[in-house]
Amino acid sequence: MLWKIGIVGFGNVGQGLAHILNRKKEALQQRYDFEFLVTFIADPVRGSLFNEDGLDLDAVLKEMAQKGSLKDRPEFTAEGTLQLIERAKANIVAEATITNLESGEPGLSHMRKALSVGSHVVTSNKGPIALALEELESVAKENGVCLRYEGVVLSGTPCINMVLECMSGCDVKSVAGIVNGTTNYILSKMEEGYDYLEALMEAQKMGYAESDPTSDVEGWDSAVKATIMAKLFFGANVKVTDIARQGITKVTKEEVIKAKKGGERIKLIAEVRKEGNEILASVSPKFIPVSHALGNVMGPTNALTVATDHLGEVTVIGPGAGRIETGQALLSDILAIHRTCLCSVH
Amino acid sequence: MLWKIGIVGFGNVGQGLAHILNRKKEALQQRYDFEFLVTFIADPVRGSLFNEDGLDLDAVLKEMAQKGSLKDRPEFTAEGTLQLIERAKANIVAEATITNLESGEPGLSHMRKALSVGSHVVTSNKGPIALALEELESVAKENGVCLRYEGVVLSGTPCINMVLECMSGCDVKSVAGIVNGTTNYILSKMEEGYDYLEALMEAQKMGYAESDPTSDVEGWDSAVKATIMAKLFFGANVKVTDIARQGITKVTKEEVIKAKKGGERIKLIAEVRKEGNEILASVSPKFIPVSHALGNVMGPTNALTVATDHLGEVTVIGPGAGRIETGQALLSDILAIHRTCLCSVH
Repeated sequence: MLWKIGIVGFGNVGQGLAHILNRKKEALQQRYDFEFLVTFIADPVRGSLFNEDGLDLDAVLKEMAQKGSLKDRPEFTAEGTLQLIERAKANIVAEATITNLESGEPGLSHMRKALSVGSHVVTSNKGPIALALEELESVAKENGVCLRYEGVVLSGTPCINMVLECMSGCDVKSVAGIVNGTTNYILSKMEEGYDYLEALMEAQKMGYAESDPTSDVEGWDSAVKATIMAKLFFGANVKVTDIARQGITKVTKEEVIKAKKGGERIKLIAEVRKEGNEILASVSPKFIPVSHALGNVMGPTNALTVATDHLGEVTVIGPGAGRIETGQALLSDILAIHRTCLCSVH
Repeated sequence: MLWKIGIVGFGNVGQGLAHILNRKKEALQQRYDFEFLVTFIADPVRGSLFNEDGLDLDAVLKEMAQKGSLKDRPEFTAEGTLQLIERAKANIVAEATITNLESGEPGLSHMRKALSVGSHVVTSNKGPIALALEELESVAKENGVCLRYEGVVLSGTPCINMVLECMSGCDVKSVAGIVNGTTNYILSKMEEGYDYLEALMEAQKMGYAESDPTSDVEGWDSAVKATIMAKLFFGANVKVTDIARQGITKVTKEEVIKAKKGGERIKLIAEVRKEGNEILASVSPKFIPVSHALGNVMGPTNALTVATDHLGEVTVIGPGAGRIETGQALLSDILAIHRTCLCSVH
């Protein structure tokens, strides 16, 4: 089967996926028998492209790098994203627009539309998954397609599919993790002697923190991921605003250094655990022994410890952001869909 | 679909799987829409059972616990294992006999037979996977069934499926891991001040080491896992006997303690890496910084660091043995087969 893929949102992540697909075309065919065309790219700012016979990714990426826009490409179309998703009817739509935690838009509408016209959807967009997973899963089911979202927690580091698939059959008792790289980078810098504000500025300089760092440092980003994990691993509906949440803005260099001397590190931990029939979710700075797997995770690296009945504690450590890393999350979901369909053939 | 499952080998792992299946019957149905019967258990020593309508696992496990044998059960059959596999034609055979690294038998014949009569096979048996993976995959393909083997490295801790599925699309550059819990337990005890022999005896007392510990302490078990990883992650045929292999018998307490003082730990590392077009595999004690994820893994815990092009280093840490842990590996593979077939229905 020749897969037709559409990429919605051509920022860092969309371009990351396009880079990988472009560079690995042959390898993907040889290794996984996976053949594809990217038939459309939808981005109202950078320009949308459509070609039923497949876009030339190499040329598209070069133009993007040179001009920062696709509007001069011959395949340019002024069509809106929803219309393009409907007309193109790709087999798989990779949704990679910017996360909006209040409405989930525009990603939510993109996913609804794609699923309803029979496109599988893979996404790294936390908003719609945190806000409307049930609805989206139900649209997917009605239309006989899949919705996959490995990238919404820990980017391409195996996490969601690791727990839901590789550990299926386990009861999850708790998850606790460093799910925000910006804050972990800042806390790591504070151990080196930086004040909080100096460390934040360094994070901004490195591109790890945004100019308005609120979402990261106040723990909102971690809380969204806790919401998603509560839903996926515990079946619980926990609103982001209902999560006990404390950021890192009040953590001092002195506390970080003192903790280290006592064999501990202060880490911003997103935790979801089951107590009796209750699901408790929180985000807060915690003292973690350096001998624990999470206590040793430094810089922008992320990690998650999953405690289960059958396996005790399993910890995964890896990158939590990055354009290639998140593009990889989308690719692994695309290949999972391909595997399923391969199997259904024989 | 009602899955008919056969369990071949009813030692620790086979019983571990049976325990989980027995305890989680309802949860598996509710959560995964997975319904099953265990129609046969084959074990020439403990006794083989067959009932087309499903065995009473609760009664079987109780009898096993009380008598150490199934020979008094009404479903007892004197039939040989291969005949039973052929007659029962289960949808899934879980092969959990003892690893034999020279011939792969009897597991290899069990798997060949099961696949050739159209049963999917899941296994935790390293021998046949290390010795005859290509042949078995080809028999599986001919018969339109799957062969899965998560449990052969790191027991139920996601590892093989994590790399092959959750990280699909990545090029693996190297894997390096603590893949043998016995030796890691011994080295951990040596850091506490035990001599090698004292630590070994403690490991034997705890049930982590066998009375003849050669396979663990001389690195053979780790080497078999390196062989399997070379095949699965690099497509390379590396014989166990061709792996540069050094065990832990010459490591002294003094070296372990001195390393620790210098911020390092001595760990028995199984490594496979690509250098140019060559695949290099080795097992040896290595100095690992305590700041590295592998340097902090203590006791019988296992871990694997996978270095890839898209994700840099990803490390997973978790149990590497145990009857429930390995039973869980078999269950996750069974549920993966179930997922594939669910998808192919709609």
